[in-house]
This record gives sequence, structure tokens and C-alpha cells, in this order.
Amino acid sequence: MTMGTKSDVPPVARRPVLDGDWVTLAHGAGGKASAALIEQVFFEAFGTPAAARGTDAATLTVPGGRLAYSTDSYVVNPLRFPGASIGDLAVNGTVNDLAVSGARPAWLSAAFIIAEGLPLAELRAVAADMRAAADRAGVTIVTGDTKVVPREAADQLFITTSGIGLVPPTRHLGADRIRVGDRVLLSGPIAGHGMAVMIARGNLALHAPITSDSAPVNRLVEALYAAVPAEDVRWMRDPTRGGLGTVANELAAASGQGVLLDDDAIPVQPMVRGACDMLGIDPLYVANEGCFVAVVAPESADGGAEALRAAGAAQAGVIGEIVDSLPGIVAIRNAFGGTRLVDTLVGDPLPRIC
Amino acid sequence: MTMGTKSDVPPVARRPVLDGDWVTLAHGAGGKASAALIEQVFFEAFGTPAAARGTDAATLTVPGGRLAYSTDSYVVNPLRFPGASIGDLAVNGTVNDLAVSGARPAWLSAAFIIAEGLPLAELRAVAADMRAAADRAGVTIVTGDTKVVPREAADQLFITTSGIGLVPPTRHLGADRIRVGDRVLLSGPIAGHGMAVMIARGNLALHAPITSDSAPVNRLVEALYAAVPAEDVRWMRDPTRGGLGTVANELAAASGQGVLLDDDAIPVQPMVRGACDMLGIDPLYVANEGCFVAVVAPESADGGAEALRAAGAAQAGVIGEIVDSLPGIVAIRNAFGGTRLVDTLVGDPLPRIC
Repeated sequence: MTMGTKSDVPPVARRPVLDGDWVTLAHGAGGKASAALIEQVFFEAFGTPAAARGTDAATLTVPGGRLAYSTDSYVVNPLRFPGASIGDLAVNGTVNDLAVSGARPAWLSAAFIIAEGLPLAELRAVAADMRAAADRAGVTIVTGDTKVVPREAADQLFITTSGIGLVPPTRHLGADRIRVGDRVLLSGPIAGHGMAVMIARGNLALHAPITSDSAPVNRLVEALYAAVPAEDVRWMRDPTRGGLGTVANELAAASGQGVLLDDDAIPVQPMVRGACDMLGIDPLYVANEGCFVAVVAPESADGGAEALRAAGAAQAGVIGEIVDSLPGIVAIRNAFGGTRLVDTLVGDPLPRIC
Repeated sequence: MTMGTKSDVPPVARRPVLDGDWVTLAHGAGGKASAALIEQVFFEAFGTPAAARGTDAATLTVPGGRLAYSTDSYVVNPLRFPGASIGDLAVNGTVNDLAVSGARPAWLSAAFIIAEGLPLAELRAVAADMRAAADRAGVTIVTGDTKVVPREAADQLFITTSGIGLVPPTRHLGADRIRVGDRVLLSGPIAGHGMAVMIARGNLALHAPITSDSAPVNRLVEALYAAVPAEDVRWMRDPTRGGLGTVANELAAASGQGVLLDDDAIPVQPMVRGACDMLGIDPLYVANEGCFVAVVAPESADGGAEALRAAGAAQAGVIGEIVDSLPGIVAIRNAFGGTRLVDTLVGDPLPRIC
């Protein structure tokens, strides 16, 4: 990346390049290659309006109000790892996509693609995890589907959930509502999920009791809205694939503003940080499944963070600010006064973990 | 199957047996084994209410009315076959599940699990097929997801769609509304889809210009409702996996009544019938993707069939009747006056085709 490129071209107009003739793993990693594939294959074919691109859920207007609607496929391997399983993820991930759209998640669908030979006991355990996660989030799995494919065709089990939530009328989120001076809140420590999955694969020479952060954030989102005026909540996102670094870049690109993060304010559990250091992985790019980022008005930042902590997110806090000096760019400053740029992932530098 | 079993145990109370320790392909074939897996793993874990079991879509009450909500995964192989592709199926299948719930399909989600190495041109073609099918059905693909998995893990491409439709207030469907004397309508010829896919696989010593019937049925459902009183439409279903024979058995089991079909009234294209005969396959168990079954009050049967034909379903007609002489059982009578029982598929006698 050169600064020249950034200043010559307005960042919001940068169009990712879709290279090559075949889909590669990089197209699924949540970075620039993923964005290119989604933009240039699916959004173009489906005629997705610009306003609906780059959001985790669609907003639908029905006779009685607005719904949020979202879907995600879960292909994590192994199916079970410290702190969670593919079942927890499949519920929490979709619950969280709805919650960060401002919705109250209510109903989920669950579609299973199962490779023949999967032990029934494993399938039952995953289904039980889904029920427990749904109960914890206060949602109901109301419809589903099951397909079985030959063993060579699938990696044990894929789950696709979709979800519907009701959006209270006062809630309006969007990158266009972000103002210079707004603060960036983060609800909890990052990188635990991705590191837990990587270690559970067992092909790293590393053993550490790191657990996934997989959890629903909808009750935290409600706590935030209960504590501050609804219009002070501008934009929310859960930093899953691609991590906090990628979400911050999406924020910068969508708003056209700069995002200045404070390295010391971003919580990372010591064990997770140690594992990242040993493996040379930047925790900013490691996936999360139980925290969210919110941009809020400056006067609501401290109250919002306090409300999140009171609701159980002990390490929630203000991690950054929207600035006008870095249009479309994310930078992070450390305790020594240094500042470095945080770019979007181009390919897939980490093992596939979600 | 013995008649003894049928008369000793009330058919609606028959509980399918979930055998073995592993998932097998039979669990995905849409017959009794599928029903056992879904009942005893997913419905039990998720606490699905009895009334919601065995329907193609959930009905949700929101402030302004009722929604239908459905999901399906599409794992068809090959991805493209005469008359359709996985893309058409993924749209039409979910549109049809909503339509036979009495809903007007409005919005779809689409989640892609792509094996690395899939040609981008193929993915673009599938996306274009989805857009064309969505336009034809009058629905919009509003949200989605993309995951890429290593080549050994998936069979090129799996698509999971979910969909939301609005249910007009006058429409109420359910097996409990079925009465003896009601008629069974079928909107079009059966078995074309399944035979088209089987032949496209190229491992049968058979070549015939058979095309899939993949099509949305929502406009036909609207034509039916426009022609007859809403309360005269009792129950609808699209006979996909497992075919018409399996859907008729679901109807018999759910209503506790008998279903007497008229063999000569069930349309099968001559080429499709010939292929089925050569391969020893009963068209009653071959999958469809563009027709639906409706149980209607006797006084609305002829008018309903006429309305379907006027709306373009040239071979729509009355194919059977609800009878009280065969509780929970499906029978079919032929032109020679003979009658045979039509059982649910137990395993997977046909190649996997959807």
C-alpha cells in the first residue's frame, strides 16, 4: 500500500479488483478479495442497491414496521473447540448480525448440509448447542432444512442460519450518520475466537487454554440503547471474519472519515496476545464471535461504555475516534506516541477459521 | 409394509425409527429416514411445536400481520442440467415453499459455500440464473453470505436460500382443515426435474431431451386464490424431494384421512414416463421443482383447476380425493379398476438429485 494511492483516489470510490478465473480461499477470508467477489459477482447480478451493500443485514419495511434480515453459512473446522462449537457460532453469528443492525433478534432458520458418516451423537450435540445458544439470546429456531451429501463432498457439517429481528422505530443506523468527533466503542476483548479455533486444529506447535468469545451481543446492544439517546448510536458492526482491523476499514470506507484507534484501549486477553505474538499474527485481524463495535456521539461515549460494563461486558470501552485528518483511512496510535496505518486484509494470511 | 401394522397402530402416531450411529445418504432423501432425523434430532433439540412440524415454512406474527419464513439448502450435482441450474432451484424452491404456505414471497437471502477452484464464470452464470428466477417470481434477493472452503471439502457449490413472504389475512392452511370429500389438485406434470438431473449426470445409459420443471408457483397460487374462496383452500405443498408419493403420504399422515389418487389423472410427460419405465423408477417418487399440490373444497375443485390452466398451468387438474375409508393411507387406482397402496420412501432408492 502506498500513501500516494490513497491521496490520489477518494477512498470510498476504491473498487477492489477481482483477479483470476477461479474462486480461491482468499475470496472467503473476509478481506478485499471477499469484497471484490461479493461486489462484482453477487451485488451486480442481484442488483443490490448501494445503500444495502456492506451491511450485515437487510432492512425490510412490512405493514407494522421494519424487520432486519440476515444470513450466514458456518463452515468452521473443527466442529468443536474450546468455548464453543459450530452450533453456538451458527446461532450467535446471525443473532449478532441482526443486533448490530439495531434489531431485536426474534426468529432463526437453520439449514444443515451433512456429510454422510457424521456421527449422530455429534449432530445431536451440535443441535443441543444451538438450542442453548438460542435460549441464551432469547430467539427461536422456527424453520429448517437438512441435506445429506456424499462423504467426499463436504467437510462433515455446514450450517446456514438466517434470522429475522424487529427494528424499533427510533433506531436508525448508517455510515452517513457518522460525524467527526464521534467515538468508537468496543464491547469486549478481541481475537479469542480465532486463536481458539486455530489452536484446536492442533497443527500449531502451541497449546494454550484460550477459549472462543462466542456469545450473543443482543442484550448488550439493548443495554446501550437503554442508556443513550437512540440517535446517538450511529453505526454498529460485529468484527467477525477479518477482525477489528477489517471492520474499522469498512467503517472508514463507508463514512469517508478517518478512524483513529488507540492501541492500549483495545482489550486482548494476555494469553491470546501471547499466542498472537508467538505466531506473528496481528490480533486486529483475528476473528471474533462475541463482541461488537459501535460508533456513538461523543457525549454518549462514556455513558454507553459504562452501560455495557454494567450489562456484563467487563472490558467494554472507548477505543477510538472519528477524525477528519485521515479521510477513508484507519490508523492506530500506541502508548509511545507512534501511529501506524491499519489496512484491510487482501488475501487470507490466517488459517480459515469461520 | 404390512396392512397389519397399519391397522394396529393409528397412522398419525407412527413414529419413524432413527437407526444406527451415523448419518447416511438416506437421511437426506426426503423419505422416512429424513423424517426420523429431523424429528428426533432437530425438532426435539429445538423444541419445535407439533403444529410447526411437517410444514415447509414457519408462520410468524408481527405487528402488522403474518409472515411466512422458510429455508432450504441446494446441493444438486451437476450444477447445471437441462432446463435449470442450482441457481434457479435455489430461488424457485424457496419461493415455492413460501407460496404453498399461502404467502406472497417477497424477499430472499442467499448464502454460498463455494469450493476453491470453482470457475468464476460458473459462479457468475449461477448468480445470473438466480436474478432471472427472482425477477420471474417477483422477489428480491436482499442479503447474503459467501464462504469458500478447501477443494476437498465441498462439491463445487452449495447454496442456501431463505425467504420471507407476507400472508394475506384471509388465508389459513392446515391439515386440520381437510375434510372428507375434499379434492386434490396438481398444477403440472411430475418427475421431469428428477429425471433431467439423473440423465444430466451422464452415468445412466440413457439420453433423452427431458428438462427440469423448475419454476416459481407463486403466481399460480395467486390465480387459485383469486378464483375460489380463501377458506376453500385447505392445504398446499410442493412435491420436491420424495416426489408426489411422499407428499401424499404427508397429507394422509397429517390429516389422518385417506388419500385416493387417480393414476390416469396425474400428468407425466411421455418422454419422462418412458425414461422412468426404462429405469424401473416410479415417477411418484421423483422430485419436482415447479408444481404444487392443493387440497380444496369439492365445490372449488373444478373452478380451481380451470383457474390454474388459465394462468398457464396447462395440465393442471384434479388428481384425487380425500376419503374416510383409508385412514392415514395413500392409495392409487388405475384405469383398469385396480388399486395399490403408495408408501413413503424409506431410504434413498434414487440417486441424490436435490
